[in-house]
Amino acid sequence: MKAKVYVTLKKSIADPQGTAIKGMLNKIGFSRVEDVRIGKLIELDLGNVEKENAEAQLTEMCEKLLANTVIEEYRFELEK
Amino acid sequence: MKAKVYVTLKKSIADPQGTAIKGMLNKIGFSRVEDVRIGKLIELDLGNVEKENAEAQLTEMCEKLLANTVIEEYRFELEK
Repeated sequence: MKAKVYVTLKKSIADPQGTAIKGMLNKIGFSRVEDVRIGKLIELDLGNVEKENAEAQLTEMCEKLLANTVIEEYRFELEK
Repeated sequence: MKAKVYVTLKKSIADPQGTAIKGMLNKIGFSRVEDVRIGKLIELDLGNVEKENAEAQLTEMCEKLLANTVIEEYRFELEK
């Protein structure tokens, strides 16, 4: 089973990388861009697991390794 | 208008960061995980633009700045 995990900074956390990209976009002609936030997209092949089990595993992976839950939040979706 | 851009490494390009995370997941108990690939999720607030215009702008942003099209591919989706 395949899964996608999206890890993003919490809204209250500053995102200097996103701010830099916003500044550059504004500079090269996209002057209307108001905000840019950068996150991670993690694509996993979980092997042969059932859907319920996969969801529990993904939550545990995010809490333990994939996200820093102090400053980040995560969500995931399962595919086929 | 808000948009999400997903930038991922092309399949033919090695992903050492993903490989490291796969190794660590296997080690901490998720032994069935077969593959991990890391990409970027870029959330943009494009300001006040029409949908058609937004799509054209996003393509240009990706080609010029957000993705390295030699090794990465991108896709995006518009929200509200």
